[in-house]
Amino acid sequence: MRIANRTGHITGGGSDGWEIYYRTRDLIAAGERVLTLTIGEHDIRTDRRILDAMHASAAAGNTGYAFGPGNRALREAIAARTQARTGVPTSWRNVVVTPGGQSALFSSHMVLLDAGDVGLHCDPFYATYPGTVRATGATARRVPTTSDAAFLPQEAQILARAEGARTLLINTPNNPTGVVYDRATLEGIARAAQAADLWVISDEVYDTQIWQGEHLSIRALPGMAERTVVVGSMSKSHAMTGSRLGWIVAPQEVAQAVETLATNTTYGVPAFIQDAALFALGLGEGFEAEVAAPFRRRREIALRVLQGSNAIRTIPSMGAMYVMLDIRATGLSGNAFANRLLDEERIAVMPGESFGDTAAGHLRVALTIADDRFEEAMTRLAAFAERQLP
Amino acid sequence: MRIANRTGHITGGGSDGWEIYYRTRDLIAAGERVLTLTIGEHDIRTDRRILDAMHASAAAGNTGYAFGPGNRALREAIAARTQARTGVPTSWRNVVVTPGGQSALFSSHMVLLDAGDVGLHCDPFYATYPGTVRATGATARRVPTTSDAAFLPQEAQILARAEGARTLLINTPNNPTGVVYDRATLEGIARAAQAADLWVISDEVYDTQIWQGEHLSIRALPGMAERTVVVGSMSKSHAMTGSRLGWIVAPQEVAQAVETLATNTTYGVPAFIQDAALFALGLGEGFEAEVAAPFRRRREIALRVLQGSNAIRTIPSMGAMYVMLDIRATGLSGNAFANRLLDEERIAVMPGESFGDTAAGHLRVALTIADDRFEEAMTRLAAFAERQLP
Repeated sequence: MRIANRTGHITGGGSDGWEIYYRTRDLIAAGERVLTLTIGEHDIRTDRRILDAMHASAAAGNTGYAFGPGNRALREAIAARTQARTGVPTSWRNVVVTPGGQSALFSSHMVLLDAGDVGLHCDPFYATYPGTVRATGATARRVPTTSDAAFLPQEAQILARAEGARTLLINTPNNPTGVVYDRATLEGIARAAQAADLWVISDEVYDTQIWQGEHLSIRALPGMAERTVVVGSMSKSHAMTGSRLGWIVAPQEVAQAVETLATNTTYGVPAFIQDAALFALGLGEGFEAEVAAPFRRRREIALRVLQGSNAIRTIPSMGAMYVMLDIRATGLSGNAFANRLLDEERIAVMPGESFGDTAAGHLRVALTIADDRFEEAMTRLAAFAERQLP
Repeated sequence: MRIANRTGHITGGGSDGWEIYYRTRDLIAAGERVLTLTIGEHDIRTDRRILDAMHASAAAGNTGYAFGPGNRALREAIAARTQARTGVPTSWRNVVVTPGGQSALFSSHMVLLDAGDVGLHCDPFYATYPGTVRATGATARRVPTTSDAAFLPQEAQILARAEGARTLLINTPNNPTGVVYDRATLEGIARAAQAADLWVISDEVYDTQIWQGEHLSIRALPGMAERTVVVGSMSKSHAMTGSRLGWIVAPQEVAQAVETLATNTTYGVPAFIQDAALFALGLGEGFEAEVAAPFRRRREIALRVLQGSNAIRTIPSMGAMYVMLDIRATGLSGNAFANRLLDEERIAVMPGESFGDTAAGHLRVALTIADDRFEEAMTRLAAFAERQLP
């Protein structure tokens, strides 16, 4: 029995850096102590007040089918928050709630790409990006960036790859690089999108984790609201990864298309989780800063430890729960470095190669373990790197 | 800006019986009393013990990313339940947990159909079926059935429509008809699937609601496990519609494809909901019978009230939370009958036309309001029908 060609095309291509992830899991299962800096997930759990709000909603009887595009109150709260932070007039009609940010990414591509179309994404990229484009039946095409330019997407590079493309997926603050796109970069992307008539799908799920500069949404640039779909989520901002609550903010016709798709793909998001999200948003920016604070501290630890290193150059660390390290001076690939670091130091980091070709010779370090252990890990990683210098 | 062709194709075609649904909502909002028999949802809420189990899991810290295809313990429980009820050897590797039965339906079609392929479904059909097929980029093709044959799909009808098709979606116990496929029907479907080399996607979400006969899974027929994907859910069996927890049971290569797709579309199901589902399954068949009992009672009320009616013939009512009524003797279409019934009697039922052409001149009555009000509704509906006789 043959399954769909689609299926075989979703994954594949690129280096399988996830080897590190699985090796780490096996070592830990075997009782080894491994300092694990691989996964982008908080070392805290979802705040108990949010869980209590969820339970109160469920116990009050909000356990039946929820309205497809999301509860009005939550859509209004997301719209108001978006408008307050970007200045772009945003109505609840621009918002559709989805079961997680990944679902928002997928839904955006599904309603904008037909089979055989081309969807662009930047390289390096978050692990699921090419698969998300391919799952729609479209072709995923990479827009390369360079380490020397802080992996910022350039107008000329987008235009050079835009023939036949209909969408461009960008991500700021960026996973895996920790870079925050500046205004000039966003203006270049906007010019390219307008020249090539591209939709921009802007993944902004790390928008509350800014260590340097400010977060700008491309949707706020002139003429861009009409061709931009913003992807948001409670996962990173509120430590609610497991609750699977995300959203899109888009022109109304796109939002309506996502709503129609949702009816036929997921049929709504649990109402009690929506109520928990509404409660969590009500905790305000102070709470979001609390959730972000550990990453801010650890990013400073990393910069302090790596200052003056001859072996490691830090990609400008401006936001998100990662720092990216250029270890090309050691002569090792990211894969070789990461595997040897795991073998010899029992420290797990992601090789840059697992995020695309352009991040070869780099490492992504997640800021996701306690400060003291994080400092130990960075200190030993730095010393290990020095020892590899030719 | 053009959105994908896919989007415009998802809906459309067929009568828009949902007019009744929206008119009813507006009447109720205006303060009218309407006996509402439109939606397939329990009039009870999710059991408090299940909600407490969910909260206990969340409070214990199960709030991070869940493992993509579902927690091992839940997959094992679903596999064991499936094997116990069907006799088909089933491993946890055959099971993938999805955010709801609709997601399971969509995922099954996504991994089995490419854009341009044809997916078959029976007519009449649950509202999302054609849209689910079309969302994949494939063409949805209907296999007609007839009221006189209890809307059971016939081997010859499947074969007559099978050219170029790769999947066949069936549903037993059936929404909207309330019919449970008998063994001869399933054997005919199996012969057709084997002759035309079709995958069978078998929606069995009502399998705990059997009033007459027994539920048979086509996966248990000889040679069918290798070409069948069963769709299951906690929604109907455990009154957990809002929790969005479903699954597929499939050959391992299909399960792996669904897992890959899930990584790029939904990224897992909340672990605390999975734990709630595991707890709920542990309540056993006695609990499932309790959840089903109100529908069993109301189905008996309907049959008693309608016995001897000259205007209404009841389609054999064997399972699920619906009875389907043939009102063609009145000379009215289902749409006309349902609209006049709402206007004159303030009783809301779904016209058969909203489930496909073959159910024209029929009504679907959901068994979802309290027994006394349900009996009142059926009594007035029967009297209304008598008055329409030519």
